[in-house]
Amino acid sequence: MLPTFLADDRIELAAACDPRRAAREQFARDFQAPVFEDIDALAAQSGLDALYIASPHQFHAAHTRVAAAHGKHVLVEKPMAITLPECDDMVRACATAGVHLIVGHCHSFDTPYLLARKLIDAGGLGRVRMIQALNYTDFLYRPRRPEELQTEAGGGVVFSQAAHQVDVVRLLAGSRATRVRAVMGRWDPARPTEGAYTALLWFEDGAFASLAYSGYGRFDSDEWCGWTGEMGNPKDPQAYGQARRRLASVASAEDEARLKAEGTYGGPAWKPPAPGTAAPAHQHFGPVIVSCEHGDLRPLPDALCIYGNNRRERIELPAPAVPRFEVIDELVDAVLHGAKPLHDGPWARATLEICLALLTSAQEGRDVELRHQVALRE
Amino acid sequence: MLPTFLADDRIELAAACDPRRAAREQFARDFQAPVFEDIDALAAQSGLDALYIASPHQFHAAHTRVAAAHGKHVLVEKPMAITLPECDDMVRACATAGVHLIVGHCHSFDTPYLLARKLIDAGGLGRVRMIQALNYTDFLYRPRRPEELQTEAGGGVVFSQAAHQVDVVRLLAGSRATRVRAVMGRWDPARPTEGAYTALLWFEDGAFASLAYSGYGRFDSDEWCGWTGEMGNPKDPQAYGQARRRLASVASAEDEARLKAEGTYGGPAWKPPAPGTAAPAHQHFGPVIVSCEHGDLRPLPDALCIYGNNRRERIELPAPAVPRFEVIDELVDAVLHGAKPLHDGPWARATLEICLALLTSAQEGRDVELRHQVALRE
Ligand SMILES: NC(=O)c1ccc[n+]([C@@H]2O[C@H](COP(=O)([O-])OP(=O)(O)OC[C@H]3O[C@@H](n4cnc5c(N)ncnc54)[C@H](O)[C@@H]3O)[C@@H](O)[C@H]2O)c1
Ligand SMILES: NC(=O)c1ccc[n+]([C@@H]2O[C@H](COP(=O)([O-])OP(=O)(O)OC[C@H]3O[C@@H](n4cnc5c(N)ncnc54)[C@H](O)[C@@H]3O)[C@@H](O)[C@H]2O)c1
Repeated sequence: MLPTFLADDRIELAAACDPRRAAREQFARDFQAPVFEDIDALAAQSGLDALYIASPHQFHAAHTRVAAAHGKHVLVEKPMAITLPECDDMVRACATAGVHLIVGHCHSFDTPYLLARKLIDAGGLGRVRMIQALNYTDFLYRPRRPEELQTEAGGGVVFSQAAHQVDVVRLLAGSRATRVRAVMGRWDPARPTEGAYTALLWFEDGAFASLAYSGYGRFDSDEWCGWTGEMGNPKDPQAYGQARRRLASVASAEDEARLKAEGTYGGPAWKPPAPGTAAPAHQHFGPVIVSCEHGDLRPLPDALCIYGNNRRERIELPAPAVPRFEVIDELVDAVLHGAKPLHDGPWARATLEICLALLTSAQEGRDVELRHQVALRE
Repeated sequence: MLPTFLADDRIELAAACDPRRAAREQFARDFQAPVFEDIDALAAQSGLDALYIASPHQFHAAHTRVAAAHGKHVLVEKPMAITLPECDDMVRACATAGVHLIVGHCHSFDTPYLLARKLIDAGGLGRVRMIQALNYTDFLYRPRRPEELQTEAGGGVVFSQAAHQVDVVRLLAGSRATRVRAVMGRWDPARPTEGAYTALLWFEDGAFASLAYSGYGRFDSDEWCGWTGEMGNPKDPQAYGQARRRLASVASAEDEARLKAEGTYGGPAWKPPAPGTAAPAHQHFGPVIVSCEHGDLRPLPDALCIYGNNRRERIELPAPAVPRFEVIDELVDAVLHGAKPLHDGPWARATLEICLALLTSAQEGRDVELRHQVALRE
């Protein structure tokens, strides 16, 4: 989110915490602002409107609780948490404190999906009937901390990546999800967590969706998004197998965690976002086709394609000046204007419920019924 | 199959039957060969090695029985039939008569898929783990006879199109399928049969597949196959919505059936295949990605892409001089050399079992276990 915070003048970074000294020092240098070792000290500061929580998954719930207890609005990264009781706790803590809880960034904030949703709302295409969403990336071979490869600890592609895909599909479907059937792929004994999945998802209004993901770093579905990467960046089709090659140098799990930390904020290999180099397209989460009663929609990084019964239209979508400005829109609307955010606690809990149900369905070999779902703008 | 029969000199068209006089007259003119009104008269002819049965689905079983009873080998179009008892009957009739039964053309005969299978057999990629197959076409809006829009009569995309997709996926998976979970789309009240589906398919060796299809004629997934159409032909991305436009002129079901017949062999709108205009690429059935333990495979109309862990390779596949020569290979190997065909009765019955299970799963909202499956070359 740093490029967003730097470029969006509705945001001022006024303080930060991180257990890593390098990150604290970098922040103090970059922003001449106070830094702390933990969130308790940070949240106790006055003069802060909101905390952006981008700690590892397993801390999201506890950190949200601390922020709320100090009356700070919360923007917490996806996945909201790793269990449903944690989500309940987060929703309760924020409600009690009277602060907003927004979960993101998540790719369902991306303009092409939001615009597709608007077009569906306008009604001309009829009801959504089928969604196909797939994404082939190298997720599993980016440097990881040990817990990111342990499912019980929130590791694997379901917690980190289905969190995006499910959210995008729910946004597009609009209706409440009712059940899922899924199957998981765990094919690399050296990365013993879910690296792939495919799933069916049903909705109350009769729509259904198929979600597929592979993080095994081979075929790259960005080819079907005009070779535009997840961040809206142009991708070099010739640069093949980079993630695995980079990882080949690590000898142990500690080594790998170190490699990751080195590339993170303040680390020796970390590169600050170059100012004035906004990506030339919107961010995205892989090819998505939405079939409605009277037409198909295809959100792309640079356009929204509308396939009607008789004609096809392509609405060009110029790249945003500020990446992920949509997150700040939602945050500012909530914090300054009291608007109910779309990506609030109950919304994001419903996405986590589906992620957990994907795992259960695959494990137990059956449909899993959903009980905590909300429709869009319920 | 006519372009194949004309171009492959292992084939001589020596007689034919059709209830339509126009078809019989055309055949007599084209081949100076005897024509008959029904298959009984045709099958009774001596000097014929095999009958190619391309009558509507509902006749495949009865016509196969007649052919076998007269000791003729059978090449019958997909779907093999519309019920499993029909399939049993066909297998039994051909076995009793000692004739071969081959079901096709079906797109699992296409060289890119066969080559992918060969590469998997070679072992370097490890076991197949996940297959994603999807196809968006205008199937539902091509001119149809009434029964083609009635599911009970074998109409809709499951019988006609899943028959291809399931067969391709089974070929690539290799292992015996064990269960399916599916959901159907029936979104056009004017074409009240299945126009779309999505399904999960499990295999005995732990592989799984996701199959998706839309025949609603909007987004066209041939875009992801280099704008190469099903027949290996280049497709004009600008020619949008043609199927629906053409259909807009018909006023009734009879009108539509007439329109279809007019474009069929011998009909006034029928155009003979232009000699020497072989398609510039292989035939195909939509984008397919096969993920194996150590790499992904992507069969394309003009290449087989191999995405290994470290490098990517693209094996160019020059277009065949004779389209669907693979069908004739299998027929000739069986009939002249006694080789067991891949696409034999038990193989094709297993595909029909899955098609029927897709419908049952969607109808009853549950996994359906499969009982008549065979593995590749069992
Ligand atoms: N929305 C997106 O596209 C996106 C992309 C990447 C990561 N994320 C999410 O951001 C979160 C962090 O991801 P990551 O771990 O890969 O990033 P990371 O490793 O780059 O950053 C995590 C940071 O949290 C710090 N940290 C660790 N423990 C902490 C604590 N107790 N208190 C405060 N800070 C602490 C680490 O030192 C590090 O600086 C995850 O939940 C992830 O899902 C979202
Ligand atoms: N493999 C492929 O790619 C492919 C493509 C198209 C059709 N097919 C299959 O071919 C079969 C025919 O398809 P279609 O109906 O769309 O083709 P069609 O309508 O072009 O041809 C069917 C022919 O069968 C004739 N016919 C009808 N009743 C008959 C009978 N009792 N005896 C002999 N002939 C009879 C019709 O007059 C017509 O000439 C179907 O089973 C279909 O699934 C396969």
